[in-house]
Amino acid sequence: MKIVDASVLVCGPGRNYVTVRIETDEGVTGLGDATLNGRELSVAAYLSEHVLPTLIGGDPQRIEDTWQQLYRGAYWRRGPVTMAAIAAVDLALWDIKAKVAGLPLYQLLGGASRDRVRTYGHAAGRDLPELFDSVRARQAEGYQAIRIQSGIPGLQRVYSIAQTENTPGMPVVEDWDTAAYLRHIPGVFEAVRNEFGPELPLLHDVHHRLTPQQSARLAKSLEPYDLFWLEDCTPAEDQSALRLVRQHSTIPLAIGEVFNTVFDYQTLITERLIDFVRSPVTHFGGVTAVKKLLDFAALYQIRSGLHGPADISPVGMAAAVHLGLAVHNFGIQEYSGYPAQAAEVFHPGYTFTDGHLRPSEAPGLGVTLDEQAMAAHPYRRDYLPYNRLLDGTLHDW
Amino acid sequence: MKIVDASVLVCGPGRNYVTVRIETDEGVTGLGDATLNGRELSVAAYLSEHVLPTLIGGDPQRIEDTWQQLYRGAYWRRGPVTMAAIAAVDLALWDIKAKVAGLPLYQLLGGASRDRVRTYGHAAGRDLPELFDSVRARQAEGYQAIRIQSGIPGLQRVYSIAQTENTPGMPVVEDWDTAAYLRHIPGVFEAVRNEFGPELPLLHDVHHRLTPQQSARLAKSLEPYDLFWLEDCTPAEDQSALRLVRQHSTIPLAIGEVFNTVFDYQTLITERLIDFVRSPVTHFGGVTAVKKLLDFAALYQIRSGLHGPADISPVGMAAAVHLGLAVHNFGIQEYSGYPAQAAEVFHPGYTFTDGHLRPSEAPGLGVTLDEQAMAAHPYRRDYLPYNRLLDGTLHDW
Amino acid sequence: MKIVDASVLVCGPGRNYVTVRIETDEGVTGLGDATLNGRELSVAAYLSEHVLPTLIGGDPQRIEDTWQQLYRGAYWRRGPVTMAAIAAVDLALWDIKAKVAGLPLYQLLGGASRDRVRTYGHAAGRDLPELFDSVRARQAEGYQAIRIQSGIPGLQRVYSIAQTENTPGMPVVEDWDTAAYLRHIPGVFEAVRNEFGPELPLLHDVHHRLTPQQSARLAKSLEPYDLFWLEDCTPAEDQSALRLVRQHSTIPLAIGEVFNTVFDYQTLITERLIDFVRSPVTHFGGVTAVKKLLDFAALYQIRSGLHGPADISPVGMAAAVHLGLAVHNFGIQEYSGYPAQAAEVFHPGYTFTDGHLRPSEAPGLGVTLDEQAMAAHPYRRDYLPYNRLLDGTLHDW
Amino acid sequence: MKIVDASVLVCGPGRNYVTVRIETDEGVTGLGDATLNGRELSVAAYLSEHVLPTLIGGDPQRIEDTWQQLYRGAYWRRGPVTMAAIAAVDLALWDIKAKVAGLPLYQLLGGASRDRVRTYGHAAGRDLPELFDSVRARQAEGYQAIRIQSGIPGLQRVYSIAQTENTPGMPVVEDWDTAAYLRHIPGVFEAVRNEFGPELPLLHDVHHRLTPQQSARLAKSLEPYDLFWLEDCTPAEDQSALRLVRQHSTIPLAIGEVFNTVFDYQTLITERLIDFVRSPVTHFGGVTAVKKLLDFAALYQIRSGLHGPADISPVGMAAAVHLGLAVHNFGIQEYSGYPAQAAEVFHPGYTFTDGHLRPSEAPGLGVTLDEQAMAAHPYRRDYLPYNRLLDGTLHDW
Repeated sequence: MKIVDASVLVCGPGRNYVTVRIETDEGVTGLGDATLNGRELSVAAYLSEHVLPTLIGGDPQRIEDTWQQLYRGAYWRRGPVTMAAIAAVDLALWDIKAKVAGLPLYQLLGGASRDRVRTYGHAAGRDLPELFDSVRARQAEGYQAIRIQSGIPGLQRVYSIAQTENTPGMPVVEDWDTAAYLRHIPGVFEAVRNEFGPELPLLHDVHHRLTPQQSARLAKSLEPYDLFWLEDCTPAEDQSALRLVRQHSTIPLAIGEVFNTVFDYQTLITERLIDFVRSPVTHFGGVTAVKKLLDFAALYQIRSGLHGPADISPVGMAAAVHLGLAVHNFGIQEYSGYPAQAAEVFHPGYTFTDGHLRPSEAPGLGVTLDEQAMAAHPYRRDYLPYNRLLDGTLHDW
Repeated sequence: MKIVDASVLVCGPGRNYVTVRIETDEGVTGLGDATLNGRELSVAAYLSEHVLPTLIGGDPQRIEDTWQQLYRGAYWRRGPVTMAAIAAVDLALWDIKAKVAGLPLYQLLGGASRDRVRTYGHAAGRDLPELFDSVRARQAEGYQAIRIQSGIPGLQRVYSIAQTENTPGMPVVEDWDTAAYLRHIPGVFEAVRNEFGPELPLLHDVHHRLTPQQSARLAKSLEPYDLFWLEDCTPAEDQSALRLVRQHSTIPLAIGEVFNTVFDYQTLITERLIDFVRSPVTHFGGVTAVKKLLDFAALYQIRSGLHGPADISPVGMAAAVHLGLAVHNFGIQEYSGYPAQAAEVFHPGYTFTDGHLRPSEAPGLGVTLDEQAMAAHPYRRDYLPYNRLLDGTLHDW
Repeated sequence: MKIVDASVLVCGPGRNYVTVRIETDEGVTGLGDATLNGRELSVAAYLSEHVLPTLIGGDPQRIEDTWQQLYRGAYWRRGPVTMAAIAAVDLALWDIKAKVAGLPLYQLLGGASRDRVRTYGHAAGRDLPELFDSVRARQAEGYQAIRIQSGIPGLQRVYSIAQTENTPGMPVVEDWDTAAYLRHIPGVFEAVRNEFGPELPLLHDVHHRLTPQQSARLAKSLEPYDLFWLEDCTPAEDQSALRLVRQHSTIPLAIGEVFNTVFDYQTLITERLIDFVRSPVTHFGGVTAVKKLLDFAALYQIRSGLHGPADISPVGMAAAVHLGLAVHNFGIQEYSGYPAQAAEVFHPGYTFTDGHLRPSEAPGLGVTLDEQAMAAHPYRRDYLPYNRLLDGTLHDW
Repeated sequence: MKIVDASVLVCGPGRNYVTVRIETDEGVTGLGDATLNGRELSVAAYLSEHVLPTLIGGDPQRIEDTWQQLYRGAYWRRGPVTMAAIAAVDLALWDIKAKVAGLPLYQLLGGASRDRVRTYGHAAGRDLPELFDSVRARQAEGYQAIRIQSGIPGLQRVYSIAQTENTPGMPVVEDWDTAAYLRHIPGVFEAVRNEFGPELPLLHDVHHRLTPQQSARLAKSLEPYDLFWLEDCTPAEDQSALRLVRQHSTIPLAIGEVFNTVFDYQTLITERLIDFVRSPVTHFGGVTAVKKLLDFAALYQIRSGLHGPADISPVGMAAAVHLGLAVHNFGIQEYSGYPAQAAEVFHPGYTFTDGHLRPSEAPGLGVTLDEQAMAAHPYRRDYLPYNRLLDGTLHDW
C-alpha cells in the first residue's frame, strides 16, 4: 500500500478548521486535524509545502517511522505549528490503519478500558445569577461535570465571558486585574457550591494569568470548594513554577493545553507537580505522541484531561474519544460541542449523551467529511483575543 | 510614528530567505529575517496572515510590548515557526529604532565591548587529506578558528560532507553508524592537531546524534585535543541529559541552535551544564530575546556562540554581529559566508576580514535590499536531509 | 565623541544628594545619581579620586564596556559604595546616549510597555486615628497603593513614625521589641482593611527586623488582609533564610533595597523565594545592571518594586521611571516625593498625577540641574538612625 | 574608659596605606588598617565623615556592640569600602583592649595554638629560567612554600609579571588569552616540580580569570603536580560556580580575597566547595569577623590562608599573625614583605624568619607608627591594572 495523495483542506463552518486528507493506492482515505486557532494558514503551508509532498509514495502503515521522520527530520523541531502538522499526518495514518484493520481506532490502542468517556462542559456568567443559569443549562444538556468561569467586578471583557464588539479585523483586547480576580473568585465557588450541592464536579481555568505565588494563594483559597481541578494557573513553559503551588495546596492541578511535546512535561510529571495532562491530540503530534504521554503519566498516577473546545476540529475530538476509551489512566475530557455549521461539514461519528462521549464503532476514526458543504464555509481570518492590564501592560491571555 | 506597511519577501538567491519589511509613516524602513530552512513558507504565512496585519497603525518604538503581544497573545507560544516570525518583527523594529536614533544598532545595545567579532568557519573532508585541504582553505580565507567535520569510513553520506544526488524533489537521506563515528573521530582530531599545531581553535558538531552516555564517552576521548567546543552532542530538548556528559568531562559544551526560548535553556544554564549558547537571533525571537538570554547566561559565565551558516539571511547575521560587538559575554560567531547570488539581493553592511566580522556603522542594522535583484531569484522548494541507521532506523540528523 | 569632563556635585537641598556630571566634546552632558544616604562623601571620594579621572578621553557610547571596567577592574568589587559609584557613571552615560539618539531613555530600553508607572506612597501613624489620617492624606495626593507603618505600644521611636529630637550630630537611636510588634501589627491591618475596604493595595515594610521564623509567623498572620507585599521581613544577605518564610505563607514577598548585585538575588530568584525585586538603580550599578536583573527576574515571573524614597535623587528616580515604563515585568514603584528645596535644584522632567509617574519625553533622562540653586543648599552631615532592643542590644534598623 | 579621639591617617611609603588611630581618655591608643588598594580615599572619607565622629564618647571595650552598630546601623551594609572601614575600627579597639589587658592580642583570642605562623612567598618569571631564579630567591629568604606565577607566550603583560610603563596617571592595561594560559601553565608546574623536587609546597593564583569549566579543566591538569592550593580559579561571587570545579578535581581550592562577609562563603563552606578561606582581616570587618569566619570554616575542616601582599598595611598583617597563632584551623599565611619606606612609617612588631612569622609579645597588636616619617611619604593616587582580551574585551583582572 502506498500513499498516492495528501492534501490540506481549510474551511470555516462557524470556526476555522484545517484538515489533512491522505489517500492510498488501495482507496483507503485517512483524515487528520491540523487546526491551530488563529494560526491556521501557517500550519496549512507547513503541510502543503514542506511535509505532504514528501509523503507521496510512502507506506502509510509506517506510522512510527513517519512520526520520527517528521519530528527529527524537521531539524527545527517542536512548537505548535510543527506539532499540529505532525499530528494531522499521524491521525490520518491511524485512521487509515484502523480502516485497513476493519476496526474502530480504540481497538488498535488496546481496546476499551471503560464504557464511555466522561466530559465536562463550560458554564460562565457575568454575575452569579447568569452563572447559575449557565450551570443549569449545562446540566440540562447532560453534563455531569462543569467548568465555572465568572465575570469580575470592574472588568469589561474577561476570558470566557460574553464580549462587546471590537475594531473590525483586529484582535479583541480584553482587560485584566489580578487583584480583583483573586478577591472575587473564591466567593463565586462558595456560591456555586451552596447552590448546586457538594457532589457536582467543578473545574476552573485560570488561563495562565497568575504568578506562582498568586497561584498558590488561589489554590489554598479554593480548597474548601472541592474542585475537580484547577487549570493552567501559571504560564507553565517554566515548569518549576508549579513547585510553589504544589507546596502550598493539595488542590488537583491540570496543565498543558499549550504544550507540544513530552519534554514540556518532564519536570512536571517526574516531580509529581500536576494531576492531569491537557494536551490535545491535535497540537501534540497526534495519537502516537499522546498515547506515549499518557502511558508516561500513568507511571506517576497522573490522568488525562485533554483540551477540547471547538478550537480543535471534530476529527481531533474523535481521536480524543478513542484514546479516552482505551487508556487506563483516563480522567475526563473537555467537550463543548461545535457550531451548527460544523455539523454540515464534519460527521464525527462519536455521540454525546448524559455528559459522556462514545466513539463511533465504524472502522478508523469514524469521521467523514462533506466537501461540498465545506465549500460553502470558506476560511475567514480571525484572531484570538489578547489581554492588557489596566495600565496598558500586555498580560497572558 | 506609526507602522503603515508590513510585508513578507520570499526569495531564493542560492538559498531561500524570508524577509520582513516594516515601513513607517515617517519613511523609516526596517528589515527582519524570518528564514527557517526547509519551512520557509510556513513562517511566511504565519507572518502575512496572522501577524503583520495586526501591526498596521501601531507604534514601531514599542518593541518590548510588541514582542510580548506576539509571544503571549499568540496563545500557542514557542516553537521554531512562531519564534522566527516574532524574530523578524523584532529585528525590523530594532532596525527602525536605531535608524530613528541615527546610530548603528550595537550602540543601542550598550555600545561596543570589543573591536571586532571573532568567527569560526567550516572545514570538512571525506578523508584526512581532503580535510586538511579544507582547513587550509579556511585559513587562507582568514579564519582563525575552524569547525572540523569528517567523513566516516563505511558511511556514504554524512552531515557536512559532499553528497551525491538524490531523488529529485525529495529530501536527501544520509546514513549513520554511531559506533563507526565514535571509533573514527578521536583519530581525526589527533591528526588535525598534529598537522596544524596546538594553537588553532578547533570545534566539532555532533548534530544531536548521540545518547548522553555516548556523548560522555566522546567528550572524554576528545579532551586531549583541546577543543574550543563540542556542539550539540545529544538532543537537548531533554535538558537533563547533559548532566551525564558534564559529570564525565570538562570539555566545553555548546548547544541550542534548535532552541527557541529561554525555557529551553533554564536547566542547562542554572545547572551550568553548558558553556556556550547557540541560538540564532532569527529563530529565537530576535534581538530582544537573545539579548536577555545572553545576559542570563552571563550570570553563569556562559558565553555566546550563535548559529550562523547561510541558513539564516544576511539580515539575521547583521543582527548577530551587532549583538556580538555589544554584549560582554561574547564567545565566538559561526560564519560561513553566503552564495554569490545572495550578495546581489542583500547588501549586509558588515565586513569580514582576518576571520572577524565588523558591523556596519550606518544607522540601524545596516542592511539594504535590492528588490529588483530579488525578483530574479525566486523561492524554490528545498528540503533538509534526514538520517537513517544502517538497518533503516530513522535517526537524528 | 569623547568624554572631556566628569565631576561630582554634592548638595543638600533638604536632603543630601551626590550627582555625577559627564561632559563630552560634542557638548552633550549626562547626569547620574550616586547618593548613598549617610555615606555620601565616601561615594563622592570613590568617584572623584578613583573613577572619574580614568574616564576622561574615553568613549561615552561604550556603556557596557565601561560598566565592566568599573566592576571587574575595581578588583574589590560589589558593595553599596562601589555600586553607587558605578551606577552614577552608568546613568550619566545612558543620559548621553539617549540625548545623542534624540530619544527619551525609555525608548532605548525597548519602548513603553504601559501608559504610566504606578506608585505607592507612605502612610504612618503612632496610633490608628493618626494612621487613618495619613492614609487619607496619601489618597488625597492621588496615591492608589499605600504602605502602612504603625507605632507600637510601648515603643517610643519606631521606623517611619515621627521622632523626637536627639543628641545633635549623632545618630538617632530607635527602640524595638519584636514580640510587641508581632502582637500589634495584624490588628493594625485588620483595622485598616475595615476602614478602607478590600480594594486598596496595602504594603508593609518590616525593615529586616525579624528572624526567618518570626517572618514566617508574621506572613501567615497577615494573609487575611491581602497585602500587595511584605517587604524586607528578614536580613536577606542570608538568602536561604527566605525558604522558611516561603514554606509557610503565600504572602507576596519583596526584598532587595540593600542589595547591590545580581548575586545577592541568585538563590532568591532561582528558588522563587520572592515576588518583587527592590534594588534602586542608584545602588545597583545603574540602568545596565537593573535592566539585566529585571530580565532575569522575569524568567521567574518576578516583578519590579524599586526602592524610591527621597534618599535617592530625582536623577535616580527619573531612571526608575524610564525603566518602569519600559520593562514588561514592572510591578510598582515606591515614590514619596522630595523636599521642597530639592525642586529648586533638580528639575526632574517626570510628572506625578493620580498616583502614577510619567517620564519626561525630552531626550535622555529628562532631568536638568540648577547649579546656582545647588550652591544655596550645601551638604550637611547627617546620619541614619539605628535600633536597640529594650535591653540595649543593637538590632537591625 | 571613653574614646576621645579617632582619626584617619593616609600615607604612601612605597604604597598607599590608610590607618585609623583611636585614642581613649586613659591614654591608650589603638591602630587599625583600612587600606583598600586603589580606593583608599573612599574608605578614608567613609571613616572620617560617617563613622569616626559617632565613636567619640563611646566605650572602646564594647567591640562586638560597635561592630554590630557599624554593620547593621550602616543600613547599606557589606562591600569592600564598608567592611574595610569597619575592620579598621575593630582592629583599633582590639589593639586597645589587649593593651588594657597588658597582653599581646593572640592571648585574648584563646592563646597560642602553635609556635609560629607558616607563610608562602611569591615567585614569578617571564620564562622558566627567570621563574627558577625567583623561586631560588624566595628560598634564600627562607620561604618554605612558594606561589608560582608565569609569563605566557604571546602575552606582554600578565598579572604578577614585570610590566612595561603605561600612560601616566591611568591604569595599566594588561592582556590575557585564556587558551594560551591553559596550554602553558601545566608545563610550568611540571618543570618546577622537576627542578625543585616533590616536597616544596607550591601554590598558584588564577586571579578569577577562568570560567567554571575552564577551572575544572585546569584543576584536573594540575593534579599531577601536587599543589598546596589553586587560588581564585573563577569569579566566586557566584558561589555555586565552584561546584563544577569540585566535581572534576580533588585539587585543594582557596578563595575569598575579594570577599567581605561570611555570606560570601555560605554556599562554599556548607557545600564543602573550598579548602582555604582567604579574606584579609582588613577587608572583612576585622578580627571580630574573621575569627567567626575561621570558627565556622573549622566545622567543615576548612583552614585559613589569608590574603597578605603589601596591599594591606603592616597593621592588618600584624592582626593576621595574631589570629594565625591563635586559631586551631590555621593553614598558611600569604606574606611578601613591604617596600623599604614602609618600615620607616610602620614598626610592625612581628618578625619573619625561616619562612615563618611570629607576633610581637608587646601588649596589643604590637605595631607602632612614626607619624613624622609618615609626613615624608604622602599619598599619591595610584590605580590597579585591568585586563583586556586580545579582541579588546574587558576581562577579570
